[in-house]
Amino acid sequence: MASEGSEAQNPGDGGGGGPPKLQFVPFSSALDAGFWHELTQRKLNEYKLDETPKAIRGYYYNGDPAGMPARLTLEFSAFDINTPTPAHCCPAIGTLYNTNTLESFKSCDKKFLLEQAAIELWNTITSGDAIENPVLLNRFLLLTFADLKRYRFYYWFCYPALCLPEGISLIQQPVCLGAKFSPAQIRALQSAYDELCQKEGLTALPYFLIKYHDESVFVSLLKNWKDFFPDQREKVILGVYDPSNFTQYPGWPLRNLLVLAAHRWGSRLHSVEVLCFRDRTMQGARDISHSIVFEIKLPPMAQNSAGCPKAVGWEKNQKGSMGPRMVNLSECMDPKRLAESSVDLNLKLMCWRLVPTLDLEKVVSVKCLLLGAGTLGCSVARTLMGWGVRKITFVDNAKISYSNPVRQPLYEFEDCLEGGKSKALAAADRLQKIFPGVNAEGFNMSIPMPGHPVNFSEVTMQQAQRDVAHLEELIDAHDVIFLLMDTRESRWLPAVIAASKRKLVINAALGFDTFVVMRHGLKKPKHQEVGDSPCNNPCGSADLLGSSLFSNIPGYKLGCYFCNDVVAPGDSTRDRTLDQQCTVSRPGLAMIAGALAVELMVSILQHPEGGYAVASSSDDRMNEPPTSLGLVPHQKS
Amino acid sequence: MASEGSEAQNPGDGGGGGPPKLQFVPFSSALDAGFWHELTQRKLNEYKLDETPKAIRGYYYNGDPAGMPARLTLEFSAFDINTPTPAHCCPAIGTLYNTNTLESFKSCDKKFLLEQAAIELWNTITSGDAIENPVLLNRFLLLTFADLKRYRFYYWFCYPALCLPEGISLIQQPVCLGAKFSPAQIRALQSAYDELCQKEGLTALPYFLIKYHDESVFVSLLKNWKDFFPDQREKVILGVYDPSNFTQYPGWPLRNLLVLAAHRWGSRLHSVEVLCFRDRTMQGARDISHSIVFEIKLPPMAQNSAGCPKAVGWEKNQKGSMGPRMVNLSECMDPKRLAESSVDLNLKLMCWRLVPTLDLEKVVSVKCLLLGAGTLGCSVARTLMGWGVRKITFVDNAKISYSNPVRQPLYEFEDCLEGGKSKALAAADRLQKIFPGVNAEGFNMSIPMPGHPVNFSEVTMQQAQRDVAHLEELIDAHDVIFLLMDTRESRWLPAVIAASKRKLVINAALGFDTFVVMRHGLKKPKHQEVGDSPCNNPCGSADLLGSSLFSNIPGYKLGCYFCNDVVAPGDSTRDRTLDQQCTVSRPGLAMIAGALAVELMVSILQHPEGGYAVASSSDDRMNEPPTSLGLVPHQKS
Repeated sequence: MASEGSEAQNPGDGGGGGPPKLQFVPFSSALDAGFWHELTQRKLNEYKLDETPKAIRGYYYNGDPAGMPARLTLEFSAFDINTPTPAHCCPAIGTLYNTNTLESFKSCDKKFLLEQAAIELWNTITSGDAIENPVLLNRFLLLTFADLKRYRFYYWFCYPALCLPEGISLIQQPVCLGAKFSPAQIRALQSAYDELCQKEGLTALPYFLIKYHDESVFVSLLKNWKDFFPDQREKVILGVYDPSNFTQYPGWPLRNLLVLAAHRWGSRLHSVEVLCFRDRTMQGARDISHSIVFEIKLPPMAQNSAGCPKAVGWEKNQKGSMGPRMVNLSECMDPKRLAESSVDLNLKLMCWRLVPTLDLEKVVSVKCLLLGAGTLGCSVARTLMGWGVRKITFVDNAKISYSNPVRQPLYEFEDCLEGGKSKALAAADRLQKIFPGVNAEGFNMSIPMPGHPVNFSEVTMQQAQRDVAHLEELIDAHDVIFLLMDTRESRWLPAVIAASKRKLVINAALGFDTFVVMRHGLKKPKHQEVGDSPCNNPCGSADLLGSSLFSNIPGYKLGCYFCNDVVAPGDSTRDRTLDQQCTVSRPGLAMIAGALAVELMVSILQHPEGGYAVASSSDDRMNEPPTSLGLVPHQKS
Repeated sequence: MASEGSEAQNPGDGGGGGPPKLQFVPFSSALDAGFWHELTQRKLNEYKLDETPKAIRGYYYNGDPAGMPARLTLEFSAFDINTPTPAHCCPAIGTLYNTNTLESFKSCDKKFLLEQAAIELWNTITSGDAIENPVLLNRFLLLTFADLKRYRFYYWFCYPALCLPEGISLIQQPVCLGAKFSPAQIRALQSAYDELCQKEGLTALPYFLIKYHDESVFVSLLKNWKDFFPDQREKVILGVYDPSNFTQYPGWPLRNLLVLAAHRWGSRLHSVEVLCFRDRTMQGARDISHSIVFEIKLPPMAQNSAGCPKAVGWEKNQKGSMGPRMVNLSECMDPKRLAESSVDLNLKLMCWRLVPTLDLEKVVSVKCLLLGAGTLGCSVARTLMGWGVRKITFVDNAKISYSNPVRQPLYEFEDCLEGGKSKALAAADRLQKIFPGVNAEGFNMSIPMPGHPVNFSEVTMQQAQRDVAHLEELIDAHDVIFLLMDTRESRWLPAVIAASKRKLVINAALGFDTFVVMRHGLKKPKHQEVGDSPCNNPCGSADLLGSSLFSNIPGYKLGCYFCNDVVAPGDSTRDRTLDQQCTVSRPGLAMIAGALAVELMVSILQHPEGGYAVASSSDDRMNEPPTSLGLVPHQKS
């Protein structure tokens, strides 16, 4: 068995002829769920399609009980390279290669990556940087592909270790500290190590120098080599903070230290003693006596040797063969959280390539009041859900009838039984069933309408007053008001209230094979409020008369649904035949109009001026620069 | 108490001075659920907005036990005036006034209707028609409003009875037949009546003449008056088939007979005996002995009297006051049936006023195969449901993931748990939940695709062969094939198979803020089949090159989705980044495209040439006459 790159997990001290070779316990990568979560977030919001390598941080601990694998841990904090290393841990400097596709993950040139890392390591050794800052010897690579649609994470971990060409021959087999040092010496080592850490302000020293005389033990930094060992005949001990828990084998970090030692001091030292510092707390008492000590032959390595040594380090997978690992987090995640992040993902994908400037937060955080939970209301609510809108409130006074579910996509047959559920309440319930993360409410109430006089009994008067007050409160509490009712006159009062409160109003109305989807004009804040007209600019005002049909009109000069009326809204429900009582329309129309109403809202929200956005039509593409989602019209029909 | 129009339900023989006046038991209208069902059907399919009076038929029975009200029954057969009258029943000739609105029902001039009916009655009496055919005296009016959206039926029944100005004085109080006739005479009456019915081919004789001598009893028709009573001194008995079960009061039908008698014979007869023929089966034995007999004074009425007498007859409501009745059938109907008729109603309303030529049957009976049950598939299915399509089949091989429900309107959060349900099966289940009347099926299967070679193991080869065969079977079994998948190449095989079988193909595909909805060309049946190309007319053929962009192209010359391709369809799913793996599109787009795809299909089905319809765009309105639903384009995008 070749000693270079040999691993100690199936021990055996190298059969065949010659002296026994030292073997090492490789790192097991320990990638926390928090790491994958943070990777998901960074991929979605920061990296997107960027595949360039990213600097990350890991760490290893050396206080584990015997039998535990040597782990290199990556937590959610791995992405913040300034995060302090946890106590009793050594940091490791990582490079993340996150690929965009499973194919590029699989076809990635891992040999090349390892060679690159080896050259960097070698450069830090030959340049002396590694002696100044030994953490530079602790490098790792992480190749990943995050399948965010299925919460599966593919990864391949590598801790590059430079190899000495002939391996490392053991002169003296490992023994535990207690077998070689007196208890007083052990105590002295512990104190000296702690003092140096404290002085350096480090949680742990990965590599250090040790010398001892009788009961006194001294510890120093690698860079102090010359001062620490002035006498060339003095016994040199290399210390390593060792994550291995095997009594016969040191962990992986020692490998690069030995290459460094061979390169720097190999010409002078023929052999060197190694102390694998292991530090644990057993039954409340700190203990380093299980640390191991052994002596090796240090092969000479010319200081001017330009050739970078070969390196090893790609981790084996769970089956023990060379290959990537996969972790499926969907099974251990809360399904409701999973649903939320999946919905987020689908939206954020829009920002990756298609509309990088899209400000999703403006859409997701908007509070929508849907007046009407019929064919239009259901379609609008569904499209809002698709856009990730979290706050949706329904107002309707009707019950679900048997003809509704086939056209109103939030209801089912069961909702019609026993007289039918209230549409507003059932719609809100359904949204929660579709996506538990939504905040949906329903109010079963009537909207007072012109032309529908209230009976002047005290009871009905009071009810009408309460309805007006409640409607006003609801409009106050939302950002966008959708008018989705089945009569013209029911749109009047909400349009007036919303105009007075400067809320964005989106109106949709259906004919048989025609429809209108429009935004109402939004009064400029500096103007004085005129509470009795939903429209801010009376039709026919001088500045509009002069403008052509297709010229751009700023949002504050746009009219409302009632602007073209020559009659005041009145009771349109009296004396209607059956086919006039419900909106008889081509069934596809409500979905088209409902979807367009939401898309119009989103376009308005994305415009830097919001509701004051200039009304553009496709005829004036030249005049108004489109926003991230294109032109914002006033009306589609 | 005035005797005219007096009713006997709160008996009392007319207080005050003078001789006691005869009172009558009015009809209770008995409108069967079947009657309302049939009215619903006729209103939807035949009358629509037609408010003209309709001829209907009712009947009354006289075998009820004592205490039952006298009922005039209307069954589902009431609308077929040629339906035979049930045994032991007399027919009544009705006029149905079905109004379009509750308002016109309420504001209907009931006094005028009654006067009209009185004049008609009077004319049949004065003309002699009623003597020839006494059924003409049995008339009724029915004023209705059918609220088909809520299954509430408002109605007001009227059995017009002409009134003798001074009422009818009783000379001899009613007694039962047994008190006046011997058992032999009763038997003889029964036989004579039965014989006459049989001879006339009637189930019952409403009015007839009776005379008797000792044990022999004779019965004859009104028109035989002169021959039957040659001796003017002979005792005249008028017989009436009497629906009343009161021992003291005859039923309503007698009233018009007495007016006829007074008019025709009043100058000759001062008094007349009346036999109210009642005929029931008690404990297995037929019995007419509870019939009643009494004598009245017949007031004279000049034969040339031109003035039509006053009439009464509008029924009181359940509260005992003058007003309409309402029956709510929604509570007693099977909810699933209710849902079906409600869905039908909404569709049929389109034919009433907006598109009278719409052939709904063509749409409702179409069998649709939806390849893909994702955002597009769900929206297409919902719109098909809105159009009343009953046969919908899904094919998809995916499972429902957490990001789906907010964009795919047939799924809910629960469907995503435990790895997710199969989309095709869950979609079919959901359709059943929305509308139990639908026949929905789902097949969880893959569609073989060019560029996705099958692994050449026997198992996978066989599976691919089975998939092709199954797909072919499915296409065979449906009329319209919707291509709603998420890759281009998966559309290839179904497009080829559907073209070879001459099935209508509707294709929809989404971009980010673009989409295409198109129909594939449909090869003319007389041409030879070319199985390997979904397109019937290779692009660039001479006759197309010469035509302008907007000229009309017949359906058999239209291309398919692949016509503009310069590369063969290949694997477009390999090596895709996350945002390319799902169709990243503005959320409203799928609803718009899905709805348009169905509307396009409906327009094609309505065109007299179906899939061969000329492709029209709004630019060539002048060239192609629109069908009932307007122009049929080739493509919308």
